[in-house]
Amino acid sequence: MSSIKCVGVLTSGGDAPGMNAAIRAVVRGSIYNNLRVIGIKKGYQGLINDEMEEMFSKSVSNIIQTGGTILKSARSMEFKTKEGRKKAYENLQKRGIDALVVIGGDGTFTGARIFGEEFNIPIVGIPGTIDNDLYGTDYTIGYDTALNTVVQAVDKIRDTATAHSRLFFIEVMGRDAGFLALRSGIASGAEAILVPEIKTDYSQLDRFLQNEYRKTKSSSIVLVAEGDEIGGAIKIAERVGRDHPEYDVRVTILGHIQRGGSPSAFDRVVASQLGVAAVSALLDGQRNIMVGLSDRKVVHTPFNQALKNKKSLNPQLLELTNILSI
Amino acid sequence: MSSIKCVGVLTSGGDAPGMNAAIRAVVRGSIYNNLRVIGIKKGYQGLINDEMEEMFSKSVSNIIQTGGTILKSARSMEFKTKEGRKKAYENLQKRGIDALVVIGGDGTFTGARIFGEEFNIPIVGIPGTIDNDLYGTDYTIGYDTALNTVVQAVDKIRDTATAHSRLFFIEVMGRDAGFLALRSGIASGAEAILVPEIKTDYSQLDRFLQNEYRKTKSSSIVLVAEGDEIGGAIKIAERVGRDHPEYDVRVTILGHIQRGGSPSAFDRVVASQLGVAAVSALLDGQRNIMVGLSDRKVVHTPFNQALKNKKSLNPQLLELTNILSI
Amino acid sequence: MSSIKCVGVLTSGGDAPGMNAAIRAVVRGSIYNNLRVIGIKKGYQGLINDEMEEMFSKSVSNIIQTGGTILKSARSMEFKTKEGRKKAYENLQKRGIDALVVIGGDGTFTGARIFGEEFNIPIVGIPGTIDNDLYGTDYTIGYDTALNTVVQAVDKIRDTATAHSRLFFIEVMGRDAGFLALRSGIASGAEAILVPEIKTDYSQLDRFLQNEYRKTKSSSIVLVAEGDEIGGAIKIAERVGRDHPEYDVRVTILGHIQRGGSPSAFDRVVASQLGVAAVSALLDGQRNIMVGLSDRKVVHTPFNQALKNKKSLNPQLLELTNILSI
Amino acid sequence: MSSIKCVGVLTSGGDAPGMNAAIRAVVRGSIYNNLRVIGIKKGYQGLINDEMEEMFSKSVSNIIQTGGTILKSARSMEFKTKEGRKKAYENLQKRGIDALVVIGGDGTFTGARIFGEEFNIPIVGIPGTIDNDLYGTDYTIGYDTALNTVVQAVDKIRDTATAHSRLFFIEVMGRDAGFLALRSGIASGAEAILVPEIKTDYSQLDRFLQNEYRKTKSSSIVLVAEGDEIGGAIKIAERVGRDHPEYDVRVTILGHIQRGGSPSAFDRVVASQLGVAAVSALLDGQRNIMVGLSDRKVVHTPFNQALKNKKSLNPQLLELTNILSI
Repeated sequence: MSSIKCVGVLTSGGDAPGMNAAIRAVVRGSIYNNLRVIGIKKGYQGLINDEMEEMFSKSVSNIIQTGGTILKSARSMEFKTKEGRKKAYENLQKRGIDALVVIGGDGTFTGARIFGEEFNIPIVGIPGTIDNDLYGTDYTIGYDTALNTVVQAVDKIRDTATAHSRLFFIEVMGRDAGFLALRSGIASGAEAILVPEIKTDYSQLDRFLQNEYRKTKSSSIVLVAEGDEIGGAIKIAERVGRDHPEYDVRVTILGHIQRGGSPSAFDRVVASQLGVAAVSALLDGQRNIMVGLSDRKVVHTPFNQALKNKKSLNPQLLELTNILSI
Repeated sequence: MSSIKCVGVLTSGGDAPGMNAAIRAVVRGSIYNNLRVIGIKKGYQGLINDEMEEMFSKSVSNIIQTGGTILKSARSMEFKTKEGRKKAYENLQKRGIDALVVIGGDGTFTGARIFGEEFNIPIVGIPGTIDNDLYGTDYTIGYDTALNTVVQAVDKIRDTATAHSRLFFIEVMGRDAGFLALRSGIASGAEAILVPEIKTDYSQLDRFLQNEYRKTKSSSIVLVAEGDEIGGAIKIAERVGRDHPEYDVRVTILGHIQRGGSPSAFDRVVASQLGVAAVSALLDGQRNIMVGLSDRKVVHTPFNQALKNKKSLNPQLLELTNILSI
Repeated sequence: MSSIKCVGVLTSGGDAPGMNAAIRAVVRGSIYNNLRVIGIKKGYQGLINDEMEEMFSKSVSNIIQTGGTILKSARSMEFKTKEGRKKAYENLQKRGIDALVVIGGDGTFTGARIFGEEFNIPIVGIPGTIDNDLYGTDYTIGYDTALNTVVQAVDKIRDTATAHSRLFFIEVMGRDAGFLALRSGIASGAEAILVPEIKTDYSQLDRFLQNEYRKTKSSSIVLVAEGDEIGGAIKIAERVGRDHPEYDVRVTILGHIQRGGSPSAFDRVVASQLGVAAVSALLDGQRNIMVGLSDRKVVHTPFNQALKNKKSLNPQLLELTNILSI
Repeated sequence: MSSIKCVGVLTSGGDAPGMNAAIRAVVRGSIYNNLRVIGIKKGYQGLINDEMEEMFSKSVSNIIQTGGTILKSARSMEFKTKEGRKKAYENLQKRGIDALVVIGGDGTFTGARIFGEEFNIPIVGIPGTIDNDLYGTDYTIGYDTALNTVVQAVDKIRDTATAHSRLFFIEVMGRDAGFLALRSGIASGAEAILVPEIKTDYSQLDRFLQNEYRKTKSSSIVLVAEGDEIGGAIKIAERVGRDHPEYDVRVTILGHIQRGGSPSAFDRVVASQLGVAAVSALLDGQRNIMVGLSDRKVVHTPFNQALKNKKSLNPQLLELTNILSI
C-alpha cells in the first residue's frame, strides 16, 4: 500500500501543446485515487518560491484543448544550486506534498534526477517537448501537434512557392535532433531534409537541386532543422543563392508558432494516458522514472537511462525521402 | 528477382484522407524501382470498364496534402460476379499490368482476396479507412485525420454547450467499431462514450448524467458511435430528454465531414510508408497480403487473416474515460 | 457630461463566436472611460437572479480568441413577465448599475426595448448572432466565423463527394434568413443554394441537377438553409432521391458546430469596434439603440427600427450563383 | 453592344489567396456571357513568351478553395521595355484576345496602365494582394485570409508567450502599409502595433512596455509591420532587449506563410464578385480601370487614380488599440 497522500505537479522547460491535457490527467488521476493534488507554478522556480495551490477536478475543466500550460513554465537557475533545491524540498514538506510529477524534457528530468537523489521524494516524469528527442518513449507530448503546425505552414508556403517557381529553405525547431524536420519533411513532401544527425553533403545537395530545377523548373522545398551543422536555413540559402543566382531562393524560419496551438487528437490522448500512468506509477512505488509509450504501451524508464541514451532517427523514414522526392 | 514490370493502383470503398498520399507513394515507389504504374479509376469498376491511365512522378505532384482520392472511388456490384472479375482480369492483361495495389477497407480486401485466388495476379492491400477497424495494423490511413476533425468539431460544440449549460449527444462514424468514438471522446474530454463493442447500460448512463448535472450544472458531452446498439445519438437523446425534461438536450450528427479534409501529418507519413512498403512487398514476391504498421514497423498480414480477425478496442483507453470524466 | 458611473454587460440568446471579444471591448472601453463594469451571467435570467460580479481589465485577458461566452447565455421566460423585469431592475439599482450593454439578436433586443421603456435605464445593444439577420448593421458578430466554419466543412464534404460522384444536400443554420446559406454557398462553390427568402421551384432545381449530372457526372453540392420553405435538406433530398434513383444522394446537417470555434479576424475586429462604440454611445446619452456597422462606419439604430425592418439578401450575390455554377 | 469575343486573364506580382477564386469567376463570367477565355501563364512574361491556353468551365472546377494561382505568377523585366510589350501585344493579336483581365497589385496595374495606353486593348484590373494597400477598394483579395493566418499564428505564440511571461515582437508583411499589422494586431489582442504610417516614438513604447511589465508580468505581444521606419522586429527587439535585460524578449518573423493557404470565405466571395464584375466592366466598354468594392458595392477606379492615391489607415482602428490594451 502506498503511503502517498498528496501529489505536486509542475511543468518546466520549453512549453509544448498537450501539457494542459497532461496536467488535467494528473489532477483527475490523483483525485480518482483519493489523493490531494497541488499545482506548482513556473516549474522548479515556483517550488522554491512556494507558488502553489491545491487543484480540484474543476480546476482542469475545459483545458484539454488549450495550448501552453496553465501552470506556466520557466527555467530556474536557483534550482541548479543545492541551496535552491533545499528550499524547494522544505516547501514540499511544509505543504505536505509527498510525491512529484514533472512534465518537460531533458533539462526537467536532469533536475528531477538530482533532486530525487538528494531528497527523499518520489518523482515521476512525463515527456513533454515538441522535439521528440527523449529516449524511453516513442512520442513526446507536443510532437504531433508541432508536426501538424509545421506541415500546415509548409502547405501554405508551397502555394506561393509553386505560384512563383521558387526554392524555399524552411527552418524548423530542433537544436540537436531532427525528428521534427524529418517527419514534417516527409509529410509535407519536401524535396530534401537536412537534420543534425546526418552530415550534410553540400555538393550532393547542390547536384540534387540542379536536377530538380532542370526537371521541373517548379517549386522546391528544403526543410532544415535549426541545429543542422551546416548552419541553419539562412546560411545554406545564402550559399545556394550565391552558387545559383538563377534560382529564386527564399527563407522562412517558422519559429515559435511551433510551440503553441490547440493540441492534436493524438497529443491529447498520449497526454491523458501518460498523466494517469504517472499517478499510477507513484502509487506503485516507482520513483525517479519517466513514463513513456513504447509500441502503444506504457513503459517506465529510469531518469538515468533516459538522459544517458540518445534516441535515433528511424532509418526507414530517412530512406523514404529519397524515394518520394524523385 | 521479381518479374513484375507494371503495377496497377486503385482506391475502393469509402474514401479516407491520406489516400492521395498513399497513391503518391505507390507511384513514386514504383518508378523508383523502375516499374511502370497505371492508375485505375473508380475502384474495381474502373478495372472492369478499362478506365485507367499511366501515371508519372508529376501525376502525383502536389497531392500529398489533399483529401479525397484523385483516382476516385466507387463500390462495384459487377466485381462481385465471376463475370465482372473475368473482364477485370482481361483488362489487366491487355494493359500489361502484372501486379495490383488496392487501397481501402474490409470490402476492398474481400474483393482482392477472391480476385487474387481466382486469377494469377499478385495483390497487396493498403489499409485506408477512417474507422481503423482493420486487423493487422495499428493505424489505418485516414483515422488520425478523422480523429482531429471530430475533436475540432466537438471543441466548437463545447463552446456553445458551455455557454448554455447543455447536454449534447454527438454521433460519429463507426457502424461496427468504436475506435473513432473512443479516441476522439478521450481527446475531446467527453463525459461519456458509447461504442458498439460495449453494451450501453442505460440506467448507469442515466445515473452518471444525473451526477454530472447535479455536480456542475454545466455542459456535458456524450460521444456516440453511429453503430451503438442503443440506436444512435437521436434515439438515446430522445430517451434522456423524455426522462429528464429539465435537461437542455441537443444532438449533432457529424456526418460526412469526417471523411474529408487535408490529411494530418501522421496520416501522410503512414500513407507514405505503406505506399512504398506495398511496392516493396510485391517486389519481394508477396501476394494476397495487407501491409500495416505494428509497433511502428511495417508488417504483412494475409487478407484471410485480416478479414477473419477483429481488432479490439484498447481496454486501457476504455478505462481512461472513467478516470478523466470525474 | 454623462452621469453614468457603472455599466452592466450581458450576453443573451444563441451564442456566437466573437461575443467574448465584444465583452472584452465593453469592459476595457468602460474602464478606459473610468466607469465600473459588472458582468451579468446567463443573460436576463442572471439579472433576475442577481448573478453578477465586477469585471476588471484582467477579467477579459486572453479571451479574444475564444468561442462561446464567458458570461454564459440563456433564454429567460421570467424576463418576459412584468414581475421578472421588475426584479431585474431592482437588482440593477441595488448594484448601482446605471446603464446596460446587451449582446445578442432579435429576442435580446425585444427584451431590451421593453425593459428600457418600462424602467429608467439606458440600454445599448450589440448585434451578436451567426445569422446576420439584423437590420441596422452590415455584419453581426459571429457571422464571418460561421461562414468560415461552413465553408471549411463543405470543403471537406467536397473531397468525399468528388471521390464518389455524389450529390450532397447540406443544411446550414438560418430559420428565417438565408444570409449564411447564400454567402457560404458562393464561397464553397455550391451548385445551388436554397434560401427561405426565395420560393424554391422544385422542377427548376430538378432540371438544373439533371443538367449538372449529365454534364459532369461529378459531385454536386446544394446548400439548404434550415428554414427553406421546401422543408430542409432531408425532405428535399428524399424527394430528389425518389425521382432519381440513379443519383447517389447524401445529406449532412452541419448543426451546432456553426455556433462555436475561435472567432475569425474579421469578427474579432467588428466585436472590438462595436464593444467600444456601445460604451461611447452610452456616454453620449444614447439609449434604446443598437450599434452596428454600415459601410464600415459605426451607426446607431433604434431598437424599434432594428426589430421592425427586415434586412434583405444582396441581389447581386443571388445572381452570382447562377453565373458561377455553369 | 460590345465587340469583345475573347478575354485573356493573368495573375501577376506577389500571389495572394483567392486569386484562384477570381480566375474561376473571370472564366465562368466570360463563358456565361458567351466569350472565349484564355489563361495566360506567369503574368506578363507569359504574354511575351506566348504561354497560354484556352480555359473552360471545367478548367476552374475545384479551385475556389486553393491558395496560390493555377496560372502562376512572376515579375517580368522584359515587360518593362517597349519591345517586350510589343511582343506581348502581337501575341494577343495572334491569339485573338481582344480584352485583358489582370489580377494583382500596384506593379501589375502600373504595367497594365502603360500597356493599355500604348496599345489598343481594353484592360480591367482586379485587386489581389494581401497588403490591402490599393486605393479604390475597401478590401483586396487575399487580405482577409492573410489576417486570419496572422491571427492564428499570434494565437499560437500567445500560448507560449503566456507560459513563459515573455515579450514577443512579431513581424508581419507590409513594406509600405500597415493594414495587415493594424487589423491583425487588434484581432489578436496585441499590446502595441507599429506601422509605417506612424512614426514610432521609442521612448513612448518603452514607457508603455514598462507599465505593462510592472502591471502584469505576463506576456506582451507587439506586432511590427516589416516596413516600420524603426527597422523591423529584429532591430527594435534588440534595442528593447539591450535597455531591459530583465525582459525575456523573443522575435518571430511570420514570413511567407502569410501569402498561402486556403482562402477565407470572405476572400472567396470578394474574388467571385470582382471576377464577374471585371468581365461585366469589359462588356460595358470600360478600360484601364480597376474594379473594387466600396461599401459592399462594385466600383470602378481608373488605374491612374488607383496608382496615384494612397489609401489611409482607419483612424478609429488606430485609436482602438490604445483603448483595448489597457
